[in-house]
Amino acid sequence: MKSFAGNYFEDFTLGRVLKHATPLTVTEADLAIYRSLTGSRYALYSAAPFAEAAGFERQPIDPLIVFHIVFGKTVPDISLNAVANLGYADGKFLAPVFPGDTLYATSEVIGHKENSSGRTGVVYVRTTGTNQHGETVLSYVRWVMVHKQDPLSDAPETVIPDLPDVVDPASLSAHADYASYDGELAGSTDFYEDYDIGEKIDHVDGMTIEEAEHQTATRLYQNTAKVHFNQHVQAETRNKRRLIYGGVVISTARSLAFNGLANAAQMIAINGGTHCNPLFAGDTIYAWSEVLDKAELSEKTGALRLRLIATKDLPCEEYPYKGTDGKYLPNVLLDFDYWAAIPKAR
Amino acid sequence: MKSFAGNYFEDFTLGRVLKHATPLTVTEADLAIYRSLTGSRYALYSAAPFAEAAGFERQPIDPLIVFHIVFGKTVPDISLNAVANLGYADGKFLAPVFPGDTLYATSEVIGHKENSSGRTGVVYVRTTGTNQHGETVLSYVRWVMVHKQDPLSDAPETVIPDLPDVVDPASLSAHADYASYDGELAGSTDFYEDYDIGEKIDHVDGMTIEEAEHQTATRLYQNTAKVHFNQHVQAETRNKRRLIYGGVVISTARSLAFNGLANAAQMIAINGGTHCNPLFAGDTIYAWSEVLDKAELSEKTGALRLRLIATKDLPCEEYPYKGTDGKYLPNVLLDFDYWAAIPKAR
Amino acid sequence: MKSFAGNYFEDFTLGRVLKHATPLTVTEADLAIYRSLTGSRYALYSAAPFAEAAGFERQPIDPLIVFHIVFGKTVPDISLNAVANLGYADGKFLAPVFPGDTLYATSEVIGHKENSSGRTGVVYVRTTGTNQHGETVLSYVRWVMVHKQDPLSDAPETVIPDLPDVVDPASLSAHADYASYDGELAGSTDFYEDYDIGEKIDHVDGMTIEEAEHQTATRLYQNTAKVHFNQHVQAETRNKRRLIYGGVVISTARSLAFNGLANAAQMIAINGGTHCNPLFAGDTIYAWSEVLDKAELSEKTGALRLRLIATKDLPCEEYPYKGTDGKYLPNVLLDFDYWAAIPKAR
Repeated sequence: MKSFAGNYFEDFTLGRVLKHATPLTVTEADLAIYRSLTGSRYALYSAAPFAEAAGFERQPIDPLIVFHIVFGKTVPDISLNAVANLGYADGKFLAPVFPGDTLYATSEVIGHKENSSGRTGVVYVRTTGTNQHGETVLSYVRWVMVHKQDPLSDAPETVIPDLPDVVDPASLSAHADYASYDGELAGSTDFYEDYDIGEKIDHVDGMTIEEAEHQTATRLYQNTAKVHFNQHVQAETRNKRRLIYGGVVISTARSLAFNGLANAAQMIAINGGTHCNPLFAGDTIYAWSEVLDKAELSEKTGALRLRLIATKDLPCEEYPYKGTDGKYLPNVLLDFDYWAAIPKAR
Repeated sequence: MKSFAGNYFEDFTLGRVLKHATPLTVTEADLAIYRSLTGSRYALYSAAPFAEAAGFERQPIDPLIVFHIVFGKTVPDISLNAVANLGYADGKFLAPVFPGDTLYATSEVIGHKENSSGRTGVVYVRTTGTNQHGETVLSYVRWVMVHKQDPLSDAPETVIPDLPDVVDPASLSAHADYASYDGELAGSTDFYEDYDIGEKIDHVDGMTIEEAEHQTATRLYQNTAKVHFNQHVQAETRNKRRLIYGGVVISTARSLAFNGLANAAQMIAINGGTHCNPLFAGDTIYAWSEVLDKAELSEKTGALRLRLIATKDLPCEEYPYKGTDGKYLPNVLLDFDYWAAIPKAR
Repeated sequence: MKSFAGNYFEDFTLGRVLKHATPLTVTEADLAIYRSLTGSRYALYSAAPFAEAAGFERQPIDPLIVFHIVFGKTVPDISLNAVANLGYADGKFLAPVFPGDTLYATSEVIGHKENSSGRTGVVYVRTTGTNQHGETVLSYVRWVMVHKQDPLSDAPETVIPDLPDVVDPASLSAHADYASYDGELAGSTDFYEDYDIGEKIDHVDGMTIEEAEHQTATRLYQNTAKVHFNQHVQAETRNKRRLIYGGVVISTARSLAFNGLANAAQMIAINGGTHCNPLFAGDTIYAWSEVLDKAELSEKTGALRLRLIATKDLPCEEYPYKGTDGKYLPNVLLDFDYWAAIPKAR
C-alpha cells in the first residue's frame, strides 16, 4: 500500500516518537491569508513597525497560526482515525516564529488507556514544533480517542501522564520587552492593570463561517482531517455536513476578542481546551472572555489567564456557558483556557 | 466596558481628530489575495518588471487596496453605527505604496448636520492615510449618516464643508514617468489619445460574488462593519442577508474594466461615489465606463476622468444608468467617478 | 471597440505568434494561496530548507502553478470563444520558477482544421512561458475547438502538427540533483525503485469544491474564461451552473495524490490530458494514479510516467476509468498523463 490510512490505537506504543511529515515554511502570506479568513486585527501581527517597537526583531507570526500548522502536521499520524479530540494541556509558545522560518513537528506517545468497550482507546502525545535551527517554538500535549485496529488485541498497561491544569506563568516569556507600545494604535487603552480577575467581556461581534472559508483555512494549515473536506462522505453521517475544524473556531473567536482584549494580542500558553459542540457552515460565531488569573511577566508586561468561550448563533451579553447540570449549553462551541501577554500601563 | 460599541453623532465634534487603530503592513501577499478575489489583471500591479519599466522604484500596491485598507481602519470609529455611507469626495492618492510599507489612518471631523428627525445626523470627515515615514499616501472626504446616542441631545451648529465636485487634475501626479510602457503586454493598444470625452465602454464580462469571497476581501482590509459578516443578525433585517461591502463592488467593477481600459491602470483620484443599491451573494456584477473628461499630466501621461457604473444581473451593452425620473435604475449598484493615469501613445 | 471579444477560427493563421498580455510576478504568496485552495503538501513546494537540500537554489514554485498562470494568459487570445479545450501534448517544464520571477506567455499557431459543420474549427497552438530573463520555463501544445466568425468564410488548408504521444524522458531534467532528500520528512519512504509499471494507487481522500474556491483559484491564475465566473449567464445554459476550470481538477487531484506519491512531487512534463466530464460546485473530487512507465533521469533521480484520474462523487478503490464501450465513465473528470521526478532510494 502506497497510500497511508493512519495509525490505530495499537500503533501508539509508549515512548514512540513520530516524526511528522511535510515541514512548512511560513511567510508573510500566511499572515495575510489568516487575516483575510479570520478578520484578525491585533497590531502585533498586522504591523511590522508596531511589532518592532514592542521589541520583536521583526514582524512575528501569530502564535495561533504556528499552533494550527504544527497541529496540522500531526493529523496524518495521530488523528486520522480519531473518534474525538479530547483535550489539550501544557501548551507553551517557547520562541517567536518569523516569516521565512520553517516549522517541523514531532510527537511522543506519553500515555494510553484502552476504553472499556475494547474498541477504542485514549492516546496522549506531547507534540513539539521546532524551527529550521532546531529550536523548540511550541510544545503541547493533546489526547485523542482512537479506534483499535483489532478489538481483540490485548490492552496495554494504562499510563496517564501527569499534566498541569495551568501552565506556570513563571515558566513563560513574551520574547520581547514591550519597551515601546502605543495602546491607541493597538486599539485599546486597557492594559494589564485594567483587567480584574473574574471580569467578563462580551466581544459583541459575530462572524458567519462559510464552507469555502473553513476549508481554505484548514488547508492553509495543511490539516487533512477528512471530516472537514469530503461532503460526499459526510452526507452519510448523522450531521450530514462537513465539520468545521476546531482551530477555525479558536481563531475566529480570538479575532472577535480583539474588541475588548486588543492589547492581549500575544498568546503565550494554552492551558486547556474543549470543543464542546460541532460547528457547521452557515453558523455564526460569537465570543466572550473571562479573566481567570493574572501574573507578572516582566517590568513592562503581565499575563492574563483567559477563558475564551465561543458560541454559535447566540450573542454573549449574558455570558452563556454551562447549564445547571454542569454541562455545556448546546450553543457553546469552545471552552479555551490560555495565557496572553499584555503590556502594563506606562 | 472593555469592548467598544462605536461613536455616535454627538461624539463627532467639529475639528476632532480620531487616530484610528491597527496600522497594517501591506505586502505582496495583499496583491496576490486581491488578485485572487477580484480577478485584477492590470500589468502595473501584476508584474514587477513592468512597473519598474514604467518608472516605479518597484512593484507598487494597487491604489484601491490602499483605499480599502485606510477606509477599513476608519470603520470602528466612524461608521460602526452608521445608517448609510453617503458619499466620497476629494480623494487623492498622493504617494505610491510598496510592499512592506505600513498604513496608518486618522480622520478629522470637518462637518456635521443633524437630520430633521432628531435621531440621526450626517458627519463629514477627512481621512488621511500615511505610511511609516509619516508621508500622506491618501486623503479623502466621506460623509455618513450616524445614529444619535440620545435623540434629545442638542443639535450642533450645522457645518457643511466646501468640497470640490472634481479633483483638479493639475494637483495630481502619476508618481512615475511611464518612460517605458508596452501596451501589448499591458493588454491594450488604446492610449490617452484614443479615448474621447463622452465615449462609453461596455466591459462585457460578468462576475458572480459568493459570501465567502466578499467576507474574505472585507477582512483582508480589516473592515469590521457588522452588516457584512453576521448572518445571524442579518436574517432579522429587511433584506434577510449580509450586505456586500461597497468596496468589493468598486474593485470587482474596476477589474472588469480591464477589458477596455487596460492602460488606465492607475487610479490617482476619487471625485465621488455613490452606492446606489445593495449587492448580495449570488448576484453577478457587470460594469461599463464613460469618459467624463481628459487632462494632461506629464510628457508621457494623461489622465482620464471616468465614470464607472456597476450593475447586478444586468449586462451593460445599453449602458444602464438612471431612469427618466433621474433616479438610479434598480439594478445599478455603483456610480463611481475617478481619475486614472494613462500613458500617451509613443 | 475598446473591449476585446476574443479571436475566432479565422484569426488563427498558420505561424501567427500571439504575444499574450499581462505578465505576472509570482511570489511566495502564490504558493501559500495555492496551498490554501488545493491542500497541496508536497515538501518541495512547502519547505524552503527541504527544497534547498534537494538542490534547488531556493524555494521553487510548484510547476502546476506555472502551468495554470501561463495557460491563463492565453485564454483571452486563444480560448475566449472556444467551444471545447480538446487536449494537451508535449508539455515540458524546462527551468524552475522562483518567487519573484515574472512569467510571460506567447503562443504560435502550429495547426488548424475546419470542422465539417463549417461553423467551428480546431486550432493547435504551441505556448511558451518565459521568465524575466527570457528563459523558457514551460512549453506545451494545446488544441481547442473555436467558433468561426463567419460560417461562410473559406476553410484554410488543414495542417495537423506531428505531436509525440509521450515526452521523451531523455529530454527531461529535474533541475536539481536531489543530493539530499529525507523521505520521512516528505511523507513517504517509497522511492523510484518502489513503484512498478502497471501499479495502481488509490489516493483515498476526497475534497469537495465550493464556488468561492474554484473562482478564487481561477482568478489567482488570471484565467478569465467566462464559464467559470458568470452565474447570470450560466443559469441559461444546459448545466445551469458555472463550470469549474479543469486546472482546479488537475491541482486538486494532484494534491490528493500526495497520499501515495509524496516523493513524486515535481511534475517535469505533461504528455497529455483530457477533461472527460464537467465538475460543478458541491461535487467531491477523488483520485487514483497508475504508473505507466519509468525512466532514469540522473544518478539520484528517476521519473515516473503517471496517469492521474480524477472522479466526482466516486471513491477510487476500484480504479474507475472507462466503460466496456471504451468511453470514460460518467463520473470520471480527468485523464491526465505526466512525468514526475522522484528520488531514488539511497
